[in-house]
Amino acid sequence: MQKKKTIGIIGGMGPMATADLFQKIIALIDSPDDQGHPRVLIDSNTAIPDRTAAILHGGPDPLPELIRSAQTLEQAGAQVLVMGCNTAHYYYPQICRHITIPFLHMLEESAKAARDSGFRKVGVLATDGTVRSGVYTQALERWGVTQLLPDEAGQAALMEMIYQGVKAGRAVWPAEAVNSLISELADQGAQALLLGCTELPIAFDRYHLASQIPLLDPTWALARSAVRFSCGEADPLEV
Amino acid sequence: MQKKKTIGIIGGMGPMATADLFQKIIALIDSPDDQGHPRVLIDSNTAIPDRTAAILHGGPDPLPELIRSAQTLEQAGAQVLVMGCNTAHYYYPQICRHITIPFLHMLEESAKAARDSGFRKVGVLATDGTVRSGVYTQALERWGVTQLLPDEAGQAALMEMIYQGVKAGRAVWPAEAVNSLISELADQGAQALLLGCTELPIAFDRYHLASQIPLLDPTWALARSAVRFSCGEADPLEV
Repeated sequence: MQKKKTIGIIGGMGPMATADLFQKIIALIDSPDDQGHPRVLIDSNTAIPDRTAAILHGGPDPLPELIRSAQTLEQAGAQVLVMGCNTAHYYYPQICRHITIPFLHMLEESAKAARDSGFRKVGVLATDGTVRSGVYTQALERWGVTQLLPDEAGQAALMEMIYQGVKAGRAVWPAEAVNSLISELADQGAQALLLGCTELPIAFDRYHLASQIPLLDPTWALARSAVRFSCGEADPLEV
Repeated sequence: MQKKKTIGIIGGMGPMATADLFQKIIALIDSPDDQGHPRVLIDSNTAIPDRTAAILHGGPDPLPELIRSAQTLEQAGAQVLVMGCNTAHYYYPQICRHITIPFLHMLEESAKAARDSGFRKVGVLATDGTVRSGVYTQALERWGVTQLLPDEAGQAALMEMIYQGVKAGRAVWPAEAVNSLISELADQGAQALLLGCTELPIAFDRYHLASQIPLLDPTWALARSAVRFSCGEADPLEV
């Protein structure tokens, strides 16, 4: 058996989303023992400042800590990097300049997965930072997929659930407002719902949200891509 | 707010137990945002050979890889180490010689937690390697707690569930044999059940095992101790 490549996870955005990505990588490996799994190095670097606050409101710059984590993981032995935060991909090109190993792009992988599943129009649920920086718009356009976004009230309800619900560690959260924005996106012709913030797969499980259309989880898309690369079955997408 | 110390996890024994320890550390922090959590560095080093095989059957020595992970984490910035595998604590004194940061001892923390809860006699469920190397016996004796062990058939059923069930990633496992050894330990006077293998808390959840007596989870004891140390609220136990 060929040795699997070591996966490095730039994490801490938030920590629970990092654990979720790690578990999805583990779940994708069918091994009878510990040794059949790839080595995974994780920097759950909670010193990385909030991405949305930086992109939209002039908050502290996350880039220096993102670069520090990327370099720490490379020095520790990572052979490929992944980053479990959609919004942070705003800084992807700048991080790439400071490392010499491949760095899988979560949004490109997700957009490709949406296209491969035959979807041409998807609703995108994401933070204000992700939405307004246009990182998903670009990735989806590259793969020929049209993006539908919640209206202003729906986007505000989504942000509240992400920040006051999941990030604040709340076990319970009222589902009505988010369920209703999902229905609106489906009514507008969204064929699937892209959970474009790594806290959202957790929110869907924990808060029992409901969707009439299929869910696309970028954390699974990224985990699959990381495992394929680690096992020598695929190269990273050209970004 | 004082900055929390960075926690390093020597993991990969198995990977799912590593994710479990990480999630328990996160769950113990009451923070409204990512930045209130400690930084956590993880080396899920699945190149570490099986501990029980090495201790009992002359399998490949895990020590070099354990030391490599400990040093990797220290170099990456960890200020305190934890190791999410009971059996691997057989090598604890040798690992300590190669690092300069504190290293919390999972079995001592668990034995102290059992004593602090008022238990004087506990059933210990662990791998053959942990049981026969006597690492729990020593830790429990130091804290004045008597250890009760499964009989030979019970121990074999336990090992099968750990290796063919959890480590092999099985979603379902018949609970009868392990449930019956738990009843026997309770009948012999065990006041609580120490889950002395990090795969066991996962097995109890996943396979719906039943216990008449309280469960003591060393992963929780270690996570609590790591968080207290990270927050500057407690020093490591003298080992």
